[in-house]
Amino acid sequence: MKLTYRWEDDLKVRNMSIISLTTDFGDFYPAAMKAVILGINPGVQIVDVTHSIRQAGIREGAFALYSLVPYFPAKTVHIGVVDPGVGTSRRALAIKAGKSGQEQFFVGPDNGLLIPAARRLGEMEIYEITNREIMLKSGISATFHGRDIFAPAGAYLSRNIQIDKVGRRISDFVNLDFGNFGIDGPFLIGEVIFADSFGNVITNISDDVILKFSTFGSYVEVNGRRVPFVRTYGSVGQEEPLALIGSHGFLEIAVNGGNAGLQFGLKNGNQVAIKVM
Amino acid sequence: MKLTYRWEDDLKVRNMSIISLTTDFGDFYPAAMKAVILGINPGVQIVDVTHSIRQAGIREGAFALYSLVPYFPAKTVHIGVVDPGVGTSRRALAIKAGKSGQEQFFVGPDNGLLIPAARRLGEMEIYEITNREIMLKSGISATFHGRDIFAPAGAYLSRNIQIDKVGRRISDFVNLDFGNFGIDGPFLIGEVIFADSFGNVITNISDDVILKFSTFGSYVEVNGRRVPFVRTYGSVGQEEPLALIGSHGFLEIAVNGGNAGLQFGLKNGNQVAIKVM
Amino acid sequence: MKLTYRWEDDLKVRNMSIISLTTDFGDFYPAAMKAVILGINPGVQIVDVTHSIRQAGIREGAFALYSLVPYFPAKTVHIGVVDPGVGTSRRALAIKAGKSGQEQFFVGPDNGLLIPAARRLGEMEIYEITNREIMLKSGISATFHGRDIFAPAGAYLSRNIQIDKVGRRISDFVNLDFGNFGIDGPFLIGEVIFADSFGNVITNISDDVILKFSTFGSYVEVNGRRVPFVRTYGSVGQEEPLALIGSHGFLEIAVNGGNAGLQFGLKNGNQVAIKVM
Repeated sequence: MKLTYRWEDDLKVRNMSIISLTTDFGDFYPAAMKAVILGINPGVQIVDVTHSIRQAGIREGAFALYSLVPYFPAKTVHIGVVDPGVGTSRRALAIKAGKSGQEQFFVGPDNGLLIPAARRLGEMEIYEITNREIMLKSGISATFHGRDIFAPAGAYLSRNIQIDKVGRRISDFVNLDFGNFGIDGPFLIGEVIFADSFGNVITNISDDVILKFSTFGSYVEVNGRRVPFVRTYGSVGQEEPLALIGSHGFLEIAVNGGNAGLQFGLKNGNQVAIKVM
Repeated sequence: MKLTYRWEDDLKVRNMSIISLTTDFGDFYPAAMKAVILGINPGVQIVDVTHSIRQAGIREGAFALYSLVPYFPAKTVHIGVVDPGVGTSRRALAIKAGKSGQEQFFVGPDNGLLIPAARRLGEMEIYEITNREIMLKSGISATFHGRDIFAPAGAYLSRNIQIDKVGRRISDFVNLDFGNFGIDGPFLIGEVIFADSFGNVITNISDDVILKFSTFGSYVEVNGRRVPFVRTYGSVGQEEPLALIGSHGFLEIAVNGGNAGLQFGLKNGNQVAIKVM
Repeated sequence: MKLTYRWEDDLKVRNMSIISLTTDFGDFYPAAMKAVILGINPGVQIVDVTHSIRQAGIREGAFALYSLVPYFPAKTVHIGVVDPGVGTSRRALAIKAGKSGQEQFFVGPDNGLLIPAARRLGEMEIYEITNREIMLKSGISATFHGRDIFAPAGAYLSRNIQIDKVGRRISDFVNLDFGNFGIDGPFLIGEVIFADSFGNVITNISDDVILKFSTFGSYVEVNGRRVPFVRTYGSVGQEEPLALIGSHGFLEIAVNGGNAGLQFGLKNGNQVAIKVM
């Protein structure tokens, strides 16, 4: 089958661009960011990744961005705002990451939030946002840089301004990674990096690692409890626990139709010991 | 008054299209579907119907789609993913439904979810999605066909590929309807098919049926409790129960400013006996 | 730096327009409004302000709109539906507000919901919506004017129909303001007008008033409890209370990382006595 990509011609004419939003703002406040964005780039596509990151949950927000960036097209601008330091001296960043022609952009606070996602795409160029001309004209509040700095900066980037217009390039940014898993005898020692709204618990043990030590159809022990290691939820009965490789590429502990976070007593940051059997 | 429909000319140039999403994915996962869709059709309008269908609530999801399709324009592509069988052998479907020139499209699992909505529009053509060229290029996970199969298939349909490019036409799909109501002496016996987020309880007794047996301003008994049958919530006092014809065209049990599901002990699938008085 | 505003040329060609939605509809029902809107104006940008206004919370909804309008571009159409009187004799309104060339539009019930936001923009022209040609063609339900009247009226306004096509101009609309604060000895007596999803409590005491009586770095008493008056959340420790000027320009009571509404026992409509120290 041949698909004729006529939309690519469209795209040149329409300069269609995408901005994603990842915040801990809950309800209502994201609309102010969107209003500001549309005032600068009325044709942009805005995608809400989530506004339900736990307050100040920088690692959770970083994982949400990290797991989604491979699915977004080139030139997408990701605005991430999980920002306990808002109004203090923490810096504002804009990042270009990825191979030439395939870059995506990131805007948000200098607290590590953007780094795992940007690094996943390849080489990063990091800039400090200081140019007042790309901030909100009516003034900068002390509490809502999502609206006053990150939204307009992201909107200008989505209109293809050169990233070096935002401010000077820096190299001393705040780093973040999802920690390393360790191997201790028969155990893989990892950590919970995200719990989704259904209570599925996502670890920092990646698919290639677990598949080196185990195979689908066998069992693993999760903090001492034996569960089948299978391909999908429907492989076990209702209310039964399982380990699987989630759609994000990491080892995930789940309960079919239930809440693994509650059943296993696991939440963000907790250690998980996986015994391969 | 004359309205000049200049936007129709626009539409030809811009090939504007609409995709609706109905899932039980909660937060965060829908953004991955949107990323994939926008990579294929960057100009499409995406409408979230709901991502809060109860997990594995196929009938609830089917009702959500069923009640909304009449309000969407021709050519809309509805992606529905309530999919307890993901990763098992259940098939993936694409459906074209409705009168020539007024068709809408449906994409989702073969478990009945899409059928009531598609059938409401008229004649259906049903295809099994098997063509790898319209699936996610980077691979198909065992747990997230919403992102890997349904999102890209829907995005290609929104760009007007011929539906028979997705795979072969089939006729042995999994059926679903909302059950029949029965008449038993003075009783209409129906079933709860949806409870909205306010606790309004929607039955499968349609407006033409109830209006054959009762009139606004009279009373009905709902599982033995007498309530006024009125046109709108404001016809009764605060916290008072009522029966009305909801905006979806079905008999609905509500409590003005309260939760009928809790007060009447009614939830999805429960029987409701309506005694006309 | 010079930014070349090429998108303004785009805008003429594309007639890009924005509709915002503010309702108490929760999940699912807003999609019906969007379906109707896109049937009339398929290119419009739809922004969800919130669908979580407390049921019948007219003042809350009015504040949400009021605080956001300054951030939206000219010509935005705001549809607000917090409408306990739906199906009764309350009127439907369309409003044009603001300086010539900078107007924004409002559509919703005549219960005060739209007034503070419209008045904030300057002069208002208020019309009663009575023209059946801009309502839903398939009929008007008694319970869902959001879908049947306000969505289509807003969509036509977003396509630049003249506002006097909706119906006749009126002047006897239902008014609403956020109340006045009073001064009583050393006290500013105000009122809670909004509590956001984090429990931050927003009063009707505006920034210019509080800054006449107090300065950042000092303390205020909130209903008898002494709290620091500071610029931002991070100025106090975790779980500590503070008073600040929120991003909306009003005095706000918050707890860093906690819920001020619960800790101070304050909710919508409650009186707040601020003692300046």
